[in-house]
Amino acid sequence: MDLLSIKDPSFLKNMSNEQLEGLSQDIRDFLIGNLSKSGGHIGPNLGVVELTVALHKHFDSPKDKILWDVGHQSYVHKILTGRAGQFDTLRQYKGLCGFPKRNESEHDVWETGHSSTSLSAAMGMAIARDVKKEDSYIIPVIGDGALTGGMALEALNHIGHEKKDMIVVLNDNEMSIAPNVGALHNILGRLRTANKYNWVKDELEYILKRIPAVGGKLASTAERVKDSLKYLFVSGMFFEELGFTYLGPIDGHDYENLQENIQYAKKTKGPVLLHVLTKKGKGFQPAEKDTLGTWHGTGPYKIDTGDLIKPVGAPPSWSSLVSETVRRLAREDERIVAITPAMPVGSSLLGFAEEFPDRMFDVGIAEQHAATVAAGLATQDMKPFLAIYSTFLQRAYDQVVHDICRQNLNVFIGIDRAGLVGADGETHQGVFDIAFLRHLPNMVLMMPKDENEGQHMVNTALSYNDGPIALRFPRGNGYGVKMDEELKTIPIGTWEILKDGTDAVILTFGTTIPMAMDAAADLEKQGVSVRVVNARFIKPMDEAMLSSILSEEIPVLTIEEAVLQGGFGSGVLEFAQEKGYHDAVIDRIGIPDYFVEHGSVKELLNEIGMTKENVIDRILTITPKKQKRA
Amino acid sequence: MDLLSIKDPSFLKNMSNEQLEGLSQDIRDFLIGNLSKSGGHIGPNLGVVELTVALHKHFDSPKDKILWDVGHQSYVHKILTGRAGQFDTLRQYKGLCGFPKRNESEHDVWETGHSSTSLSAAMGMAIARDVKKEDSYIIPVIGDGALTGGMALEALNHIGHEKKDMIVVLNDNEMSIAPNVGALHNILGRLRTANKYNWVKDELEYILKRIPAVGGKLASTAERVKDSLKYLFVSGMFFEELGFTYLGPIDGHDYENLQENIQYAKKTKGPVLLHVLTKKGKGFQPAEKDTLGTWHGTGPYKIDTGDLIKPVGAPPSWSSLVSETVRRLAREDERIVAITPAMPVGSSLLGFAEEFPDRMFDVGIAEQHAATVAAGLATQDMKPFLAIYSTFLQRAYDQVVHDICRQNLNVFIGIDRAGLVGADGETHQGVFDIAFLRHLPNMVLMMPKDENEGQHMVNTALSYNDGPIALRFPRGNGYGVKMDEELKTIPIGTWEILKDGTDAVILTFGTTIPMAMDAAADLEKQGVSVRVVNARFIKPMDEAMLSSILSEEIPVLTIEEAVLQGGFGSGVLEFAQEKGYHDAVIDRIGIPDYFVEHGSVKELLNEIGMTKENVIDRILTITPKKQKRA
Repeated sequence: MDLLSIKDPSFLKNMSNEQLEGLSQDIRDFLIGNLSKSGGHIGPNLGVVELTVALHKHFDSPKDKILWDVGHQSYVHKILTGRAGQFDTLRQYKGLCGFPKRNESEHDVWETGHSSTSLSAAMGMAIARDVKKEDSYIIPVIGDGALTGGMALEALNHIGHEKKDMIVVLNDNEMSIAPNVGALHNILGRLRTANKYNWVKDELEYILKRIPAVGGKLASTAERVKDSLKYLFVSGMFFEELGFTYLGPIDGHDYENLQENIQYAKKTKGPVLLHVLTKKGKGFQPAEKDTLGTWHGTGPYKIDTGDLIKPVGAPPSWSSLVSETVRRLAREDERIVAITPAMPVGSSLLGFAEEFPDRMFDVGIAEQHAATVAAGLATQDMKPFLAIYSTFLQRAYDQVVHDICRQNLNVFIGIDRAGLVGADGETHQGVFDIAFLRHLPNMVLMMPKDENEGQHMVNTALSYNDGPIALRFPRGNGYGVKMDEELKTIPIGTWEILKDGTDAVILTFGTTIPMAMDAAADLEKQGVSVRVVNARFIKPMDEAMLSSILSEEIPVLTIEEAVLQGGFGSGVLEFAQEKGYHDAVIDRIGIPDYFVEHGSVKELLNEIGMTKENVIDRILTITPKKQKRA
Repeated sequence: MDLLSIKDPSFLKNMSNEQLEGLSQDIRDFLIGNLSKSGGHIGPNLGVVELTVALHKHFDSPKDKILWDVGHQSYVHKILTGRAGQFDTLRQYKGLCGFPKRNESEHDVWETGHSSTSLSAAMGMAIARDVKKEDSYIIPVIGDGALTGGMALEALNHIGHEKKDMIVVLNDNEMSIAPNVGALHNILGRLRTANKYNWVKDELEYILKRIPAVGGKLASTAERVKDSLKYLFVSGMFFEELGFTYLGPIDGHDYENLQENIQYAKKTKGPVLLHVLTKKGKGFQPAEKDTLGTWHGTGPYKIDTGDLIKPVGAPPSWSSLVSETVRRLAREDERIVAITPAMPVGSSLLGFAEEFPDRMFDVGIAEQHAATVAAGLATQDMKPFLAIYSTFLQRAYDQVVHDICRQNLNVFIGIDRAGLVGADGETHQGVFDIAFLRHLPNMVLMMPKDENEGQHMVNTALSYNDGPIALRFPRGNGYGVKMDEELKTIPIGTWEILKDGTDAVILTFGTTIPMAMDAAADLEKQGVSVRVVNARFIKPMDEAMLSSILSEEIPVLTIEEAVLQGGFGSGVLEFAQEKGYHDAVIDRIGIPDYFVEHGSVKELLNEIGMTKENVIDRILTITPKKQKRA
């Protein structure tokens, strides 16, 4: 059918399963075709085609509330709620968001991006419904990976305790939970759906058959009993014990199986756990065969061959630069251990894991635990490297405060995807880390100007023995600069003058340095001499250099790809105030006080005025005499 | 025995159980006597006397690592590790800390204060041990309440997966987990301890006896099977399934039972869960009978009667003022729902709960979940009141960013215990909230000058419909000011001049206002006319008033009982910079860049220079002409 003609999901109500199969194929073709051009989360969305169609057929959105945990699997939902026509703008500036977005559609009742939030939100919605004495279904859809996040476990515990009516869909794509839980699992699911009580008989017979006569060989008996119990457990007792009615596992690509279980779930009082097995990338061979997560989210690709279209000869990624330098140092120092919360690929830690399998820990989506494991390691004189995205470090804020900084432990935090990340948008922008780390006692925070300085900073961090030290680095690739053979350490709290100048000073670091240099070069031509400082230590700042600059009574412009409030520039203002430079002229460029949505990084920088042109304008404004001369 | 003579726990090794009983009594007498004078966490410590003694007898601290989750139950540990002589300074300025402290003793291997961190830290230590090929036991001791915290669940999941050698002691004081899990529970524990395999036989017989013949009345059969399974489950299958060997439940006041199980645990490979039942307040009647948590932590009390020694006629607490105003408004507005992460007493929500049992949710120690439940409620046009301590809000930082602020939802966050909290010390000081909330788009943050303004601010918050709004208020009691009958709303972002003046301006809010007023009064006598502004909106600031002040070119002093970096004063600096007031003279008083330890609030304020005298000095410094004249 013509997906572009879909206005809302009501058309599904009268479709037969056969018609739904046809629709599913149309949706798959649409996704595979469109994403080959735009890129996006192809794997997760191909996996939930039937599940999404079934949910929209059997529930009445938006009266019934479907919440997409993490949210990158919401493309099918977007198609069914009238947004197929916007897929040519997917994840592009001012275009369709890659995640659920309340202002896009009344069917997007909850916005996500970070994982494990949907159950708590659903609980809030369920309480609201019951207080208002309304009648609606609430259906959070959560992946097996997201279920390991602490807040999802907190929510399961609470939802089960309160016995709220809610249908939790566990979208188990067999990548995190063990795939082969066995026959009983399927038997139980089928039996339960058919009849709540009949299963007991079959189950008991099954168990009793499996247990040899008591008094046999005890060791073997014990093992076999344990196995049986484990089957029982995995089959849903975990959720049953938490207060849920467990249904499943269900073939998530079989409309009949889905329908049967959804209808049973709708009739069940209290919280239900609908365990749905799906296959990531279903229906597109390259994605279906993927075992590494390459097809979780991609850029453009060729449909026929499944080849990813990548820029040729791009320099190594920042993630790879950092992780590989850690790996290099780990060869010399056995105390170095790497920790990632479920991002071994994103953080380029596969090489480290291969070389040091006993010193690399993927803890799952569990940022809080990851941070405190690192702290625990550091108490034992180890050198933990916590590889974490800026936006996900937010979830470990308290652990960074209470466990790492307060105990002043030698944890090296590699803050990946710092700054604007582009297409993933507002939930993933790494723009708060400076503001939430700078006020923490004992914290050292730095950002390199290029990958050569980056490798020296990794070395600096792992040589540092006076407390926590964090290195922020951007998403994407380095510049391809020449790399020094030998690793150096950079004295903590020292800045570097990249270009001298006498009329104004730009203090900046990381990604914004090239723009500052360009602006300074242009200004030079206009007769304005601008000094550019690589303010690579955000905390502690180079107080000697900063004092000297402020003593010169030369105007200062700070630039940071991060929020302005409480940021690096504020640190400069604070320093000037503390040291009594009351006449200092200081201007700041950074991210203003709103959430920056998706788009290319260039478009976003343009939107917030982080451009060469604006830098030139601002410099001319704070150097008024020069402005007149120019 | 003379507890003051204890240097380290080695003396325990050769003591008989009978001698240990005597020692336990001595410890109880010591605690009851000392804490009657100093106050402290009496209930939790009386509950773990035998457990702590047994752990120190059977393990070799500090080679073996005992980690105290939350840490307020570490007094017995402190006594056994040579610190009995310092108990007269407990929780006092420069005295013994109420929590484990690494610089106090080599036996304090991990510092706590916030809950649920010990398992992650223990995992870090276990990894370190194994990488270094060392040999030691690692023993985190965690309460049943702390186990509901998401990070503890993340840790259980990971520890079980990695199969690290570790002995997790679950100190179950029967206040959070259901107390009566039944006979099988005890049977299993005893049998398992005796012989790993024999239990299977007994257990099977027990189960089979409980299950009536298959084919009987099915409904009843199902229920009984379910019960049996539940017993199995509760008896440890939950932990077994997560990869732990479960031992217990153990009578935590019975040395023989403790010894037997600890010795068995030491011989067991992989992670062990030692389920120990203890009684809070054991051995002190008033504390033992406590069901409300009154004796969890107390001030001084009379030993003979168990009466708490309280200041007579103190005004109501801030918590009570806020919660009772919410309750009052909830009578008119059904959309108001209260949420607390395990602090219904601390947050004075018992009255609300009694009046609105369906609109009050204690979610357990689960701050992340609590914040996002509030967000979910707000999506449904409800008016959630999230009651949370400042220091614990740290754990929900990402949920405040990603779920509440980003979606701009009407959540009212009541930030209790904001500012310095005193005796609980550095893990509990509520001094970061301004710095970690001010940089979040859409956030409104306010603090009242007294409880009358406080009640109006509660009303303001619950009348506000444009996004999140937070009210920070201090620990302790109000001033006893006259309360208006009728509730008002205060225009968002408006400040109030409390005292006019022409030579300098103090901008401050909340607890520091009286000090500012006193300083201004003193300065007046010296001929310096100081304006004092109640800067009750920390964000957004009163930009009109601030512009007007800065236009007057009058020096400004900001005062905040919170960290300086990224704080309110920085906001004033940022504003002055943004609006081009480059000549503004602005000084700031606040908490410098270190963690403030325990002591009375007055002592701590003195330490950091937040005193009337310093305010006077600073004002004189920034008004130099006046200084000369004076």
